[in-house]
Amino acid sequence: MKPHGPIPPGYSADADGMLLVGGERADALAARAGDTPLFVYASALLKARVAEWRAAMPTEVQLHYAMKANPFAPLLAFMAGIVDGFDVASGGELAAALASGMAAEHISFAGPGKRDRELEAAIKAGVTINLESAGEAERALHIAARLGARPRLAVRVNPDFDLKGSGMKMGGGAKPFGVDAEGVPALVRRLVDAGADWQGFHIFAGSQALAAAAIAETQAQTVALAARLASDIGAAPPLVNLGGGMGVPYFPGDSAVDTAAVGAALAETLAARDPVLGASRFAMELGRWLVAEAGVYLTRIVDRKVSHGETFLVTDGGLHHQLAASGNFGTVIRRNYPIAIASHFGAEAVETVSVVGCLCTPLDRLGDQVALPRAEAGDLVAIFQAGAYGASASPAAFLGQGPAREILV
Amino acid sequence: MKPHGPIPPGYSADADGMLLVGGERADALAARAGDTPLFVYASALLKARVAEWRAAMPTEVQLHYAMKANPFAPLLAFMAGIVDGFDVASGGELAAALASGMAAEHISFAGPGKRDRELEAAIKAGVTINLESAGEAERALHIAARLGARPRLAVRVNPDFDLKGSGMKMGGGAKPFGVDAEGVPALVRRLVDAGADWQGFHIFAGSQALAAAAIAETQAQTVALAARLASDIGAAPPLVNLGGGMGVPYFPGDSAVDTAAVGAALAETLAARDPVLGASRFAMELGRWLVAEAGVYLTRIVDRKVSHGETFLVTDGGLHHQLAASGNFGTVIRRNYPIAIASHFGAEAVETVSVVGCLCTPLDRLGDQVALPRAEAGDLVAIFQAGAYGASASPAAFLGQGPAREILV
Repeated sequence: MKPHGPIPPGYSADADGMLLVGGERADALAARAGDTPLFVYASALLKARVAEWRAAMPTEVQLHYAMKANPFAPLLAFMAGIVDGFDVASGGELAAALASGMAAEHISFAGPGKRDRELEAAIKAGVTINLESAGEAERALHIAARLGARPRLAVRVNPDFDLKGSGMKMGGGAKPFGVDAEGVPALVRRLVDAGADWQGFHIFAGSQALAAAAIAETQAQTVALAARLASDIGAAPPLVNLGGGMGVPYFPGDSAVDTAAVGAALAETLAARDPVLGASRFAMELGRWLVAEAGVYLTRIVDRKVSHGETFLVTDGGLHHQLAASGNFGTVIRRNYPIAIASHFGAEAVETVSVVGCLCTPLDRLGDQVALPRAEAGDLVAIFQAGAYGASASPAAFLGQGPAREILV
Repeated sequence: MKPHGPIPPGYSADADGMLLVGGERADALAARAGDTPLFVYASALLKARVAEWRAAMPTEVQLHYAMKANPFAPLLAFMAGIVDGFDVASGGELAAALASGMAAEHISFAGPGKRDRELEAAIKAGVTINLESAGEAERALHIAARLGARPRLAVRVNPDFDLKGSGMKMGGGAKPFGVDAEGVPALVRRLVDAGADWQGFHIFAGSQALAAAAIAETQAQTVALAARLASDIGAAPPLVNLGGGMGVPYFPGDSAVDTAAVGAALAETLAARDPVLGASRFAMELGRWLVAEAGVYLTRIVDRKVSHGETFLVTDGGLHHQLAASGNFGTVIRRNYPIAIASHFGAEAVETVSVVGCLCTPLDRLGDQVALPRAEAGDLVAIFQAGAYGASASPAAFLGQGPAREILV
């Protein structure tokens, strides 16, 4: 038997033992969506998450949603009403963000390979471009001049530190992201001299960290770096995007970020900040932390079979929808995501089984030798932490099984 | 500097140093397709590959294409004309195979999680179903009875051996694929007694092996296993699908499979086979080996930047099209796929650079510290071995960058 990650809070079963998501039975949700596999996103959990963040953080800090985590249009429209801004990473995401109802002035666009047409779309829309290099800055200025527009430009800074314990390091050494700190003051002067509307800094040191102390330390370093840069430039950045960093517990032994501790430390950091940042606003940019726990992936068991004494539950889902849960995206060692039999939720585990997808490849494993209640063909399996980097981050066309359904409840 | 995999044979440059694919310049192909990123598949190389296989293998062995490797419709239609059958792994692939012009009686359908509607579609179309379990067999028989059809059914056997050195082991122990060998005779008898049209065995021990001796040994074991099962059953399987196994050289130090050696060994194995298999036909099922080398992924450099002394070439492509090349699909340690500057193909390497994609994630690296000719924004990068498990096996929707273009030339 191998352990699985912790089932997130907020999920329970009805008297039949059927998992409830957003107050609705998993089987009813599958029926309403038309079929499994299915991603269900619970708006009540999204709302609660944002409330948790706001209760913990200093009020002067804005909350941005990094929509790369989940770009499902109904979810975006819901998030547009409860966060302060969106961060996008492509022209496609920009169009989706604008369609969601989020105002252009609260959208920023980061990403290391922006094409001219994407820069043009961003300038025309009036969103803030987080510049990734001096070359990109010149292209943006050139396009803005051609359009006769005053572009909103921020500089993404490659910090000299990383986020300790983070699953994804985005700083600390040579990186394709942003401008090395020593080059930032000259670039900002260039932007201001060219007449651009300088919006400030975007500093993203890493993501998917669980230790509040590491996140707090990185935020303190980020504010200090912004202050040093502002002193060099001789002007306060209008906005300092502090990046994200707050992760979610996917695996055995993981525990949730202590949000209150992060917020308390950030309040201290901001209270003690260099006066050069006195007029600056601050934002955190969160994707996964905001949406992962609100999502559940539901897949139906098609076959139950035994091979050489091991039991396999073969489902109609798989890595074409949940690549990360199969262990094939950004992790070196495969470990089990939180998993349950949705149709016997909370029932005692009585056997050890492997839950596999329907793809004809040994990579397609959703649960490896996990202890679960007895389940048969027709039962529903739930994979949790499925609200982020699930449907949009998986190879939906692989093996012709088709995309998953998605609903927001 | 880190090495990259070997550039496959069959590629050259014109006098300008521009890579030619199927006799056409890479830049002209990008213009014809409308934009980069772009997958180009060369039909001449596909044809040469099939000819290489036929020259090496005994004539009594049929060549099946496992379309999961590349389901691009024009490529499928081309392959339908030069191979003897298609293997599909879903209802979606089944529909695409039928649309390609391949005759239904030369299509077989394997996959561990076939839904009832997929079984029904397969039976109606008259394709062969490779049954993965006794439970699936009963469902297929039930559906066929309801339809009043005589189903074409083969049994997928979980072999007691694996393919040594294979990247993907599909046999040798407890597996979600097929029926353990000891249960096969009873299942075949059940099929025959139920009036089904028993088509034989599907035995797939692994894929992506490069050592001819290992492939030959596995094929000998496969034929011996088929003979044992046939003796138990008391009837010759009409067809024995020997599986695939032949891989391609992706990484430094890899070399191509010695096809002639595999063919010679298979001829000996078949010549010496148990008389119980005297009337059986044989097939090999190849995906990657047939199509990988015929494909090139072309992506354009959007930015050239230096961070802490390291040079990055930022492209308009990335892991949303070439997940495996980024090291995030089925490999534990990231190594470099064969990579070149397509617009300076064959030119001397003069610098060490990292080639990254346009996605805002550190996972998106196409070439890590590779030695390449000098390249600037606007130049084209080529990733080779891109004909298999590229476009369809990557998360095309990730970060809203959109799918790659694909053309067959």
